[in-house]
Amino acid sequence: MTYCLGILLPEGLVLASDSRSNAGVDHLTTVKKLNVFQNGGERMICLLSAGNLATTQSIVAMLKEELGTGTVGRDLFAARSMFRVAQTVGDMMREIIARDGTFVQPYGDPNCSLVVGGQINGDRHRLFEIYSAGNFVEASSRTPFVQTGELKYGKPILDRALDGKTTLAEAAKLALLSFDATIRSNLSVQAPIDMLLYRTGSFDGTNVRKFNRDDDYWHELRRQYGDQLMDLVRSLPSLPGFDSPG
Amino acid sequence: MTYCLGILLPEGLVLASDSRSNAGVDHLTTVKKLNVFQNGGERMICLLSAGNLATTQSIVAMLKEELGTGTVGRDLFAARSMFRVAQTVGDMMREIIARDGTFVQPYGDPNCSLVVGGQINGDRHRLFEIYSAGNFVEASSRTPFVQTGELKYGKPILDRALDGKTTLAEAAKLALLSFDATIRSNLSVQAPIDMLLYRTGSFDGTNVRKFNRDDDYWHELRRQYGDQLMDLVRSLPSLPGFDSPG
Repeated sequence: MTYCLGILLPEGLVLASDSRSNAGVDHLTTVKKLNVFQNGGERMICLLSAGNLATTQSIVAMLKEELGTGTVGRDLFAARSMFRVAQTVGDMMREIIARDGTFVQPYGDPNCSLVVGGQINGDRHRLFEIYSAGNFVEASSRTPFVQTGELKYGKPILDRALDGKTTLAEAAKLALLSFDATIRSNLSVQAPIDMLLYRTGSFDGTNVRKFNRDDDYWHELRRQYGDQLMDLVRSLPSLPGFDSPG
Repeated sequence: MTYCLGILLPEGLVLASDSRSNAGVDHLTTVKKLNVFQNGGERMICLLSAGNLATTQSIVAMLKEELGTGTVGRDLFAARSMFRVAQTVGDMMREIIARDGTFVQPYGDPNCSLVVGGQINGDRHRLFEIYSAGNFVEASSRTPFVQTGELKYGKPILDRALDGKTTLAEAAKLALLSFDATIRSNLSVQAPIDMLLYRTGSFDGTNVRKFNRDDDYWHELRRQYGDQLMDLVRSLPSLPGFDSPG
């Protein structure tokens, strides 16, 4: 399992994934599930992947090979919109599954799901979740985040705290707290976390930070959040008629 | 689906469940999944149920019919410890599944899972989670809560905020926030929430509160928590080098 998260904000995008890949509990590896494709100030595309690692690595490798060939429908640099980028990624997913799926099925699930975010010059920044069927949905101001993989533990804090006014810096904190909630509760999601903070109009996909479990900032964020959450709960009104004696 | 939660504290127990029962999305009913069995100041036993409603209702009905018969292994009032209570409930679950399981299977999952908490005079208060196999695990100060059903959304706040010093009143707030997180994210869990607050040594299982979605206290708790959580996140240190311009 994996946890991938994309957040759409007026100011830009947060794209983050963990690094745990496992088959069962005893075959654990650390892999990078965040890939950036960018083209000199004209477009920035980021792909996060969850699911069968052979499938997702094949999708990324094939997309890399097609880059710059100019083949519409296969070359991400030739796609005329982020919608077409999502469609191209979904098509590549279907191609890999069609090639490998029936061979893999006896051993496990060949499927995957992806998050695609980015911007092409002339269009706004956009964010998509690509299902294992290769179809996809787009995030919007009403649904400002998408998740794939082990998503439930990390969802409540996003549901509560994200809104149309959230800044990129605030969303980065929320993303790290969302990952922390998931890691605490689920063995299959693990640090390091790779996180891209993309600022609208920059076409710059190099702002990628890697957070190890002992990263000073993340550690401090977790500690302060935990302490202050306890204080917050204590400050909330008690249930009428059920006050503790002490 | 359902969400049931039991919390074990030095001061007592919190036992709570939602009231949604559904088969698919168009057959929705409201049912009580919290049942109390108490015996005049000598014992208090509370049962929360998740899973197939016909199965859980049969278990409860059978346990009620056996009450006071004195049959060891079937009568909850004849069990000599809370451990034996959990064993009796697990056995009754197996009996019902053995009776109905193969008939139900073609139409859906006949299984269920249960939370059992309570106290018998002379013993401490105890809390168990009974799996669909009829076996069970016990909560402790290290693992102070058990959950069944749609449990992931509501787990992070408990993981972060519950500790050995949590009071009954604080745990009641956390339980309501845990249910709120689940309800926001999942259609299959819904108010009203039934919640028993049990104080150690009282053998009193009558402190049951029902929280409708528009309950004044719960509404205010949600509102304050949401607002203050945003303030908390804003007050946390920003990611070095990634500050928003505004």
